Amino acid sequence: MLYVDLNCDVGESFGNYQLGADEALMKCMSSANIACGYHAGDPHVMQETVALAIKHNVAIGAHPGLPDLVGFGRRAMLISTAEAYQLTLYQVGALAAFVKAAAAKLHHVKPHGALYTMAAENIHLAEAIAMAVRDFDNSLILYGLAGSKLIDAGKNCGLKVANEVFGDRTYTNTAGLTPRSQPGAIIPDVTDAVKQVLHMIKKRKVLSTDNVEVAVHADTICLHGDNANALQFATAIREGVIAAGVIIKTFNG
Amino acid sequence: MLYVDLNCDVGESFGNYQLGADEALMKCMSSANIACGYHAGDPHVMQETVALAIKHNVAIGAHPGLPDLVGFGRRAMLISTAEAYQLTLYQVGALAAFVKAAAAKLHHVKPHGALYTMAAENIHLAEAIAMAVRDFDNSLILYGLAGSKLIDAGKNCGLKVANEVFGDRTYTNTAGLTPRSQPGAIIPDVTDAVKQVLHMIKKRKVLSTDNVEVAVHADTICLHGDNANALQFATAIREGVIAAGVIIKTFNG
Amino acid sequence: MLYVDLNCDVGESFGNYQLGADEALMKCMSSANIACGYHAGDPHVMQETVALAIKHNVAIGAHPGLPDLVGFGRRAMLISTAEAYQLTLYQVGALAAFVKAAAAKLHHVKPHGALYTMAAENIHLAEAIAMAVRDFDNSLILYGLAGSKLIDAGKNCGLKVANEVFGDRTYTNTAGLTPRSQPGAIIPDVTDAVKQVLHMIKKRKVLSTDNVEVAVHADTICLHGDNANALQFATAIREGVIAAGVIIKTFNG
Amino acid sequence: MLYVDLNCDVGESFGNYQLGADEALMKCMSSANIACGYHAGDPHVMQETVALAIKHNVAIGAHPGLPDLVGFGRRAMLISTAEAYQLTLYQVGALAAFVKAAAAKLHHVKPHGALYTMAAENIHLAEAIAMAVRDFDNSLILYGLAGSKLIDAGKNCGLKVANEVFGDRTYTNTAGLTPRSQPGAIIPDVTDAVKQVLHMIKKRKVLSTDNVEVAVHADTICLHGDNANALQFATAIREGVIAAGVIIKTFNG
Repeated sequence: MLYVDLNCDVGESFGNYQLGADEALMKCMSSANIACGYHAGDPHVMQETVALAIKHNVAIGAHPGLPDLVGFGRRAMLISTAEAYQLTLYQVGALAAFVKAAAAKLHHVKPHGALYTMAAENIHLAEAIAMAVRDFDNSLILYGLAGSKLIDAGKNCGLKVANEVFGDRTYTNTAGLTPRSQPGAIIPDVTDAVKQVLHMIKKRKVLSTDNVEVAVHADTICLHGDNANALQFATAIREGVIAAGVIIKTFNG
Repeated sequence: MLYVDLNCDVGESFGNYQLGADEALMKCMSSANIACGYHAGDPHVMQETVALAIKHNVAIGAHPGLPDLVGFGRRAMLISTAEAYQLTLYQVGALAAFVKAAAAKLHHVKPHGALYTMAAENIHLAEAIAMAVRDFDNSLILYGLAGSKLIDAGKNCGLKVANEVFGDRTYTNTAGLTPRSQPGAIIPDVTDAVKQVLHMIKKRKVLSTDNVEVAVHADTICLHGDNANALQFATAIREGVIAAGVIIKTFNG
Repeated sequence: MLYVDLNCDVGESFGNYQLGADEALMKCMSSANIACGYHAGDPHVMQETVALAIKHNVAIGAHPGLPDLVGFGRRAMLISTAEAYQLTLYQVGALAAFVKAAAAKLHHVKPHGALYTMAAENIHLAEAIAMAVRDFDNSLILYGLAGSKLIDAGKNCGLKVANEVFGDRTYTNTAGLTPRSQPGAIIPDVTDAVKQVLHMIKKRKVLSTDNVEVAVHADTICLHGDNANALQFATAIREGVIAAGVIIKTFNG
Repeated sequence: MLYVDLNCDVGESFGNYQLGADEALMKCMSSANIACGYHAGDPHVMQETVALAIKHNVAIGAHPGLPDLVGFGRRAMLISTAEAYQLTLYQVGALAAFVKAAAAKLHHVKPHGALYTMAAENIHLAEAIAMAVRDFDNSLILYGLAGSKLIDAGKNCGLKVANEVFGDRTYTNTAGLTPRSQPGAIIPDVTDAVKQVLHMIKKRKVLSTDNVEVAVHADTICLHGDNANALQFATAIREGVIAAGVIIKTFNG
């Protein structure tokens, strides 16, 4: 049997602002990455989203981001490794409190946005984030870009790691993502995205933009939370995966 | 033997801003209330202050405040009980993460500033805060104004509570604090403050501004953290208490 | 001829968060109240919204709020009069910069949310806000709740004032709004709201919840910006007013 | 006669946090760069600092920074040119409101911290900042690192520019600052700093770390505002300059 985890960013509303069809998306995913108040989310939203995940039996993850609400955590910032450690620990702890108060268990941590990208490329930031997760709870699973520095750092720390892949992003010959600034970075057609996902799950390979079969480790698939067509995409991935006989199941290492 | 706990607000620096002589004050106190990033403090300061408390063998408490950095959490805000619950849980969880990562144990929670005052007077807010503390960890001790609604709420919730008294504030006939807006609210002379503290510890009474002996429960004494003469005051209280044969010891219910 | 101004809160999006159908609403209103970054809005949104108002030939107003993004400026805060003056001046200046850079002219200031309500009831806060507006530019018009303390303060300051009325709120015998916490505060039916508006414009009176005809000064009508049915409501008011032969025109004192 | 402007960052306190000996420093400087609430400062501090500058007859400048209070605007952020334009305009407008309300005149704009450094190196950001200043008021003077991209951008925009030099920083062969991360970046001795300043004013040259005489344009000298020994440094520069017969005078192009 083949298994795959579908993870999705949720809890990104803030105050009076609604973002994402969280309740509908919960039905598609097996793991939820819940914003922790730095790039999105607030204590009210965090409590509600934890409750939603419990209701839908979805594994709960913390989704720490850079302290940049207006930029939604998407603008790279030159932070120190100490700052990376501290802001991860702070946010993971804050979310974990809501999980604990709801008598549930925190399952994983996945950095958000620019923090995710920076941690994929910079081993020092990656190690700082991994150490924060480990120092908080070494049974947590670290979600990161498949094959990236964050995955290395998590393993080096003794954490279980989940390699994340994308159905709607194209890959380079080194199994990295084509930067969004370049043409052809996005796979617009959902059917193509489903095809790529299945290829990655079944063959553990992805066809790069140079038409090379590149090895890729697909523990978990990213469903997007805040696109206009996020729900349509998530539903297509879910249905495509099920139709192919792959079982959707929270990643547990 | 008589025992008393001396608690003090610390960790109220922020980013580039230094506030309070935390290291020196640590030598005077037995319990530290560490800011959690809402009214003061940041992840870096929280980590440093937790380390400082451990080094000085001081019990670690979370010191959640209103989300008002520019007002230092001192401006009353009309928040709902749900918001009080959520912002307490968020901040306690964030601080607890630093405590856990340092292999220490969180000991208590004391609300800050306007949240403290609002919780002393409004039973609904008090209950919300107490429930957040209990839902996070029911072995935590809730620090609040002696005899106030927050103390009631903590007890009703099954929490251990610490009644806090002030050496440098005068009391009304109902054992409430004279509002700062009124003349005579502050006891400027340190010797008088020490005298009041000893009276409260030994006799469990305080002389009100109307010259009435009022019963007061003194589990813990507030040392101020950010006054100009905070250190002088803390030292005087500490020495006065010791000289009177009272043993300074973290409150444990 | 009868004239009336229709004003509406816009520019309340923030970063990644969209709020309100600003472009569509611009077609209904004659005056726009643009958020200034404290309760909502950010520099990008402010620039875009000023451009939108210019495009639709709508008068531009600053809409300063309390520093409470997560609470959308709707939670009362115990601020001093100095703070009210300073936060008004800061926000009006910030918005005015975008207006100046676009070679347009700032027309009015209307406080937002809890600041609006506090300024309606507390003459000291009202005076502080009015003085900030006057000290910045004494040709600006101060929008406030009809007959409220803010209107008094504006007049006392030498400012032109616009009395704001609501079609969808009921009124007390003293021409105050029924608090939202009370039943019957809202007029849910749009046709009834239009009827009340026309009555206020034509007769300068409103029927209170006690069925008393109360005098009310209706210089400008509030169109809501962020309700689910904001656009439907705004369109109905606009069309109802036009159908009754009243001319929609920016208030100019 | 030789003239020089001494500029200094002030108004960097925030809420309950005091930073810098602003009043004493005002006596040393001829131009003040006042923080605008993003990296430091708040509406209260801005009002007080504008009043202080007026009292000491010091030219008032806006000192916009990145939206990063906890990082004091010192962490580089990947912002777009549109964002650079908008955040500059917002902050300059906010400060200008306090200047206008005090019946004074805004004199210049100097970006802060990482924004200053980014604008010195990146012509696109530099142009965006310069355009924001020009669109707000084309009589303002743009202060930037001597010979940097920000100076170029200001000139290209038609603005008057002030080339800023540092007494306590060493220079490279291309008249750039030695990065702080490198050894020898700082000139610790005040006497040496004064010597370098006088050399730059009189000879329009600076001796690089490679011992090469490099041309440098010294319109204004940076006095630091928030060092431990800021006041001692500022006093030494002031006295050294005066002793050498150079007249301290606000730069006016």
